[in-house]
Parts: sequence; C-alpha cells; structure tokens
Amino acid sequence: MNMVELITKKKLGQELSQEEINYFVMGAAEKTVPDYQLAAMLMAIRLNGMTAKETTCLTLAMRDSGDVADLSAIEGVKVDKHSTGGVGDTTTLVLAPLVAACGVPVAKMSGRGLGHTGGTLDKLESISGLTVEISEEDFIRQVKETGVSVIGQTGALAPADKTLYALRDVTATVDSLPLIASSIMSKKLASGSDAIVLDVKTGSGAIMQTLEGSIELAQAMVDIGVLAGKPVTAIVTGMEQPLGTHVGNALEVKDAIDVLSGRTKGALLEVSLLLGSHMLVLAGRCETPEEGVKLLKEALDSGAGLEKLRSMIKAQGGDSRVCDDVSLLPQPAVKRTVKAGVSGYVAAMDTMALGLAAQAMGAGRIQKTDVLDYSVGYVLPVRIGDLLMPETDLAVLYARSEAEADKAEQAIRNALVISDEKPELPKLCYAIVTKDGVQRF
Amino acid sequence: MNMVELITKKKLGQELSQEEINYFVMGAAEKTVPDYQLAAMLMAIRLNGMTAKETTCLTLAMRDSGDVADLSAIEGVKVDKHSTGGVGDTTTLVLAPLVAACGVPVAKMSGRGLGHTGGTLDKLESISGLTVEISEEDFIRQVKETGVSVIGQTGALAPADKTLYALRDVTATVDSLPLIASSIMSKKLASGSDAIVLDVKTGSGAIMQTLEGSIELAQAMVDIGVLAGKPVTAIVTGMEQPLGTHVGNALEVKDAIDVLSGRTKGALLEVSLLLGSHMLVLAGRCETPEEGVKLLKEALDSGAGLEKLRSMIKAQGGDSRVCDDVSLLPQPAVKRTVKAGVSGYVAAMDTMALGLAAQAMGAGRIQKTDVLDYSVGYVLPVRIGDLLMPETDLAVLYARSEAEADKAEQAIRNALVISDEKPELPKLCYAIVTKDGVQRF
Repeated sequence: MNMVELITKKKLGQELSQEEINYFVMGAAEKTVPDYQLAAMLMAIRLNGMTAKETTCLTLAMRDSGDVADLSAIEGVKVDKHSTGGVGDTTTLVLAPLVAACGVPVAKMSGRGLGHTGGTLDKLESISGLTVEISEEDFIRQVKETGVSVIGQTGALAPADKTLYALRDVTATVDSLPLIASSIMSKKLASGSDAIVLDVKTGSGAIMQTLEGSIELAQAMVDIGVLAGKPVTAIVTGMEQPLGTHVGNALEVKDAIDVLSGRTKGALLEVSLLLGSHMLVLAGRCETPEEGVKLLKEALDSGAGLEKLRSMIKAQGGDSRVCDDVSLLPQPAVKRTVKAGVSGYVAAMDTMALGLAAQAMGAGRIQKTDVLDYSVGYVLPVRIGDLLMPETDLAVLYARSEAEADKAEQAIRNALVISDEKPELPKLCYAIVTKDGVQRF
Repeated sequence: MNMVELITKKKLGQELSQEEINYFVMGAAEKTVPDYQLAAMLMAIRLNGMTAKETTCLTLAMRDSGDVADLSAIEGVKVDKHSTGGVGDTTTLVLAPLVAACGVPVAKMSGRGLGHTGGTLDKLESISGLTVEISEEDFIRQVKETGVSVIGQTGALAPADKTLYALRDVTATVDSLPLIASSIMSKKLASGSDAIVLDVKTGSGAIMQTLEGSIELAQAMVDIGVLAGKPVTAIVTGMEQPLGTHVGNALEVKDAIDVLSGRTKGALLEVSLLLGSHMLVLAGRCETPEEGVKLLKEALDSGAGLEKLRSMIKAQGGDSRVCDDVSLLPQPAVKRTVKAGVSGYVAAMDTMALGLAAQAMGAGRIQKTDVLDYSVGYVLPVRIGDLLMPETDLAVLYARSEAEADKAEQAIRNALVISDEKPELPKLCYAIVTKDGVQRF
C-alpha cells in the first residue's frame, strides 16, 4: 500500500477500505505521509465525497490515532454537547451548570474560537484566575465533587484530526461534509462521554449555511454515532443572527450569568433549554425533552444553576464573585452606544460578518498566535423582525480604541439589512435528527 | 490575492484569471507557495478541469517562469519534435539526422526516461564519451556547423513546471489533460524553436490510452500553439506495442543506426518518416508531407542521414565508430534467446508492462537517483498479428544477471496475449491534428 495508490482511488471516485483509511490517518498522525499528499487526498475527498462507511472509518481511525479519555470513574451517564460553531452562542456556559444542577454529571472538553465563531475556553479564561488546563485526574475529581467541569482537551486526543484540520484550513477543504463530520465526531468519541447532543447551526453564521446541508451533516454525525455504538441526538438550530445579545469573551460570560440569574430571557436561554433537555433524556434523567425543560427551568428558578457555575469557576481557580457582580469581568478602554439612525425592520443579518467584526476588535484570533482582548466585543440588542427608529439603540461597542470602535460600527451597520417590510422570523430550531429519523419544525 | 482564494475558485469549478494563474505559477517557481497548497490546486485542476483559456495562460506563465532559449542566431526555421513518451520509441535518433540531412536545422532539447518510457538523453549517453550537457552557445555553434544537435535543457527552462511536475508524480495528478498539455508546451515554447511537431501516443503504452483522449490532448496542445503564435502539428500514433524492435538504451541506439544504415525497415522507420515529413513542411522545405517523405528517403538511401548522426556524435564528444560497428555499444553480462513455446497469434500487448520490464532490468530509473545500465533491455522481434510457433524466437534478453533475465522473461511473457484468432492490426497513425482540424485515418 502506498499513498499515491490511495489518492488515485479517491481521485477516481472509488471507495477506500478501512485498512486504506487507517494507513492514511496514521500517516497524518505520525507525520510519515507528507503534507502535499494529505492535501491532494483532502481535495479529492472534498470533490468526490465519501460513503457513509468511509466517513465512519475515517472518524474511528482519527479517534484511535491518539488517547481516548476514560471517564468511567464518574458515576452515571456522561453526556457531551458540541456545537458546530456560532456567534454570540454561549449555550455551554448556560446549560452545563443547569444540567449538572439536575444531577447529571457534565465532564466537557471544549475548544477555542475559530474564524468568526467564539470558543468556550476563551470565554472562560476571561474570568480572572480561571484555568482550563487541568489534568484528566483533577478533571474527573472535580466532576465527582461539583458535578461539572469544562476544560481543554487532555492528552493527545485525535492527533490525526489536528494535522488534517490545520491543512484543511489552508487548502480550501474545510467545507466537506465527511471531513467536518469525522473531525467533530472523532474528538467527541475520544473525549470519553457515553452519549452526545450535537448543536448543528444553520444560516448566515453557520459552517453549513443551507438547511438541507445542515440536516445532511446532522444525519452523517448521527450515523457515525450509531456505528460507533454511542447515542447521538443532533439538533439543527438557527444561526441567521447571533444567538445571544452579547458577542465577545467576557461579554458572553456576562450574558450567561444574566441568563442563569434570571435577568435575561430569549433565544440563548431557549436553545440552551432545548439542548440541555435532550442531554437529560440521553442521560436517562427523564423520559421526554418536555420533562427535561421543566427540570432545567426549576434549576434556573431556584438559583441552583448559577450556584453550579459558581462552584465550577471556584474549582477551576477563578474569581467566582463575577456570578454576583459582572462588572468584575474585564472592561474595555472604550464603550460607545450606537443609534440606528434609520427607520425600518431588521430584515436579515450577515452573521459571519458580525462574527468577523468581533474577531477584528480583538475577541478572536486572525493568526494562531494572536493574544485575545477578553474585554472587547459588542452588545447587539436588536433581532431580526425588530422595528428600528432613528433613536433606537442599535449596539453598544466595547473596543480597545475609538478607531477600532469606528471600524466595528461600520462593520455592524454593513451586516444588517434594514427593510420597510416586516420579514418572516427565523426559527430557533429547524430539525431534530436521531437514529430514528429527521423531525422537522 | 492569496492561494486559499485561488484553490477555492478552482474547487468550485470557476475559471481562474490570467493574473491568478500567474500568481500561483510564480509561487511554484519561486517556492513561495507551499507544496501542500500546490497539491490541493493540482487535484482541484485534475478533478474540475481547465478551460482552453486557462490552459494557455498556465502554459505561458510556466514558459515565462524561467529562461526562454534564443535560437535566432541559427538561420532558417527551427522545428522541434516532442513525443508524449513510448516504449522502444527512438524516432528522434532516426529523424533528427534525416531532417538535418535535408537542410533543415535541428536544435533539439530532449528529456530523460520517465516511468515505463525511455528518454533520448539516456540513449545518447550510452555512446562512449558523448555528452548532452552543452552550453547554449556551443549548442548553437554545433547546429550552425553540423546542422543537428540533441542536448539536455540549457539554463532554467520553465522552473515552475519542474516544481509542479515533481509534485504531480507523487500526488496522483499526472493524468490531467490541461496539466499534461501545459507541461509539454511550456517547455517546448521555452526551448526557442519556431514550430513544433508533436507525437501524441495512443494505446496500452501511452499516457493517454484511449484514442479520443489522445486526440483531445493533441487538440489542446495545437490550440496552445495557435494562441502562442507558433505552428504546431500533432500526430496521433499507435503505442499498442513497442515502436521499434529494440527496448533499452544502447539497444535503441543500435536500432536507430540499423534503420539509418538501411538494414532495418518497419514501424520505427515509418513513424520517423511521417513525423520528419511534417517537420520539413513546417520548416518550409517542401509543400506536402508526401514530398517530405521522398526527401527523407533520399537522405536515408544516400547515407546522408547516417553521416549526420556520425557528425552529431563526434561534435558531442562521442565515439562515432558505433555508426559502423554497433558491437562497440555497451554489452550486457547475459544474453538469452527466448522461444515462444506456444502456438498462436500475438493478439495484444501490455506495452506499459513491457516498458516497466525494461526499467526493472536497469534500463530506466525507479528512483530519481538510480544509475542506469545502458547495456540492458531486450529485442522483441514479434509484433501484433504475427503467428508464433513453439520454436519461434520470442525475444533476446540483455540482462545484468541470469536472475534478472528470468524475471524479464516472465514479465514479457505475461505482457503478451496469444490467441487462436488473427487480430485486427493496429495502425501506425490514427490522426493528424492542426489548427485546421482533425484528420482521422
């Protein structure tokens, strides 16, 4: 077997065997196959696709290319949650404490911001003193003691995915369904949970912008779960606009605390309850998502959710006083309130552009080595369907300088479509995909 | 402009602009674009193709990535000839002296063996003392004095092609029509001739195995010639079996000398006359190919062709006595005559396998750094349609050892299909393609 033969097969649209996929994945993990051959293979996969069997083989080979976390020391069914990435989308910080408050252990390994989307680890690190770099042993102990922990990957999980992901980014092969599905699922399967709830975003701020593409991706990942023997529920949710009203690292922590304190309702809470309720179902904590939502709301109303977040922050070395005083979070040099200046309905948003605007302000990395400014971002209280008047507050900018605030203001204005006609409102949830099929809403 | 944007365009099947192609080609020549991005682009081109305009832009950009030879000091119309590569295919050594003997200067830059196909430079170097590494100045002087010179590339001709060719070999992107056409034509346009005759092989030993694929490739290269302002005639010739009866470096020099001495007739002579006659037409030496064949035959019969070969060998430092005594060419350790052993018609040959058999004997390189044994190879007197009896001589093997002769014998036997029915005979010439269209035979 050699790499040229394998590339040739995929180039001709033939199915690769499990053995052949293992060869190429181990070559990526161990760096024995040169990058140019991996790049040619990735482009051949992007253009000729993969069968469901190939996608599963690729996922399992990537999972097995490194360590697989062992969470068996934690009692109960461990349910993980993963989002394909959004803007103002901090469901993890809302649902992890709520689910834990319902008695289901949450042992979650999260990621960093990527491109126009934020990352839970970066948001958590905006809390003074908090660390997400914790050994597997301490991680397990924390979950056993407090019921919840959110950390970075321990050990070398799916190193083949790491190599391939970095190459995809620079070879225009990110947008491949089998490559997206296998990349997400290999890491989720390696992180040791018993079941997985996937939040597959759709719309202008999502990796898959069309609904059908998003449903197809959801199905592919559910299928992989079936073949890997782990229950997976994939929920297709709307990303036509930022989920929460806050975009930026400290700002999203504030948004989550506002929700857990009962001060903020809305889309971020609704989607968190939806995802969390399916986690409770997969964990066997209740029979139906409706019961799950009821349990989660009780944890919210009683303050048990916020209490769990407080315990988690404390256990990870952070200043948990932020739960009671969000002004302790990092503050920016410049705060500017921006008025709409025009009249009309918010008809649509270019959500990717909104994410990139926050990135440009310093909330995300343009190059891997960029240092984040946790304090920056913006609050965007308006949503699609809102009627604006010239004096309506459009946004509050949190910037490093007046010049950067100017740029962000321009970018946000450009990303909004204002119209005389009231638009149709986007949905929060478009479909739920399980092994039993697709339920559309 | 950046490389990810360009790969994305080609991935989506869009046409690249001249500026974009220049960017990527200069990146290849100057090594400023990493190999993995070039590899992804090559696979996207292989799978999504290129328009005629893109293929021409690519060719001209590769030509302009390095030096362009200036042959204007040589009087007359300089006509180059290029073959897409064959087995036992040494037309250059037959037609270059014959064309020169007709008064048309032949200033030819040739290549080395590649894969299963032989290379003129390697064959010439089997003549004791002969060098193909000559400065452009000496090359031009030799052509002015003797009328003919065949050498390796001078200077840095089409360095972008060099980078891309090496990558194609290891990323399974050799078999792309626009990449083949632009690779050949960029080098031919850079080597400074005024007109070009292309020998596009078709059949089991050719890079394009189907007739339609070969004609398409011929058309693409003729089109590039039109747009680059150089007349090109492409002749599609058969490679269902080795062209000459001799395969191997010194053996093919012997075959050419046998032809030029009048001792050998057959396919090698016929195809050489055909290609040579079109060279004479493009050079303005005669009006029709038929007249050209007549002139070439006169040069053959008078011995003027052999005399030109003698002058060329002498001018390049070689032992020209080989023209009168082919036993002065390198001789192998083992010579073995092999009998057919069976009865039946030769119905077909796997010509690529026959080429690989010679390569395995030491006549070709498996790795770039392999040192050739000029003496090895085989004589295969039988041709498709011949009726074999058990006692018919099938081949004479020229090998480094008995063990290698055993292997070669097996490979040659495996490559021949023997049948009870007389097969249809393959043609020597299937089509002639010029700017005026395709003439099929």
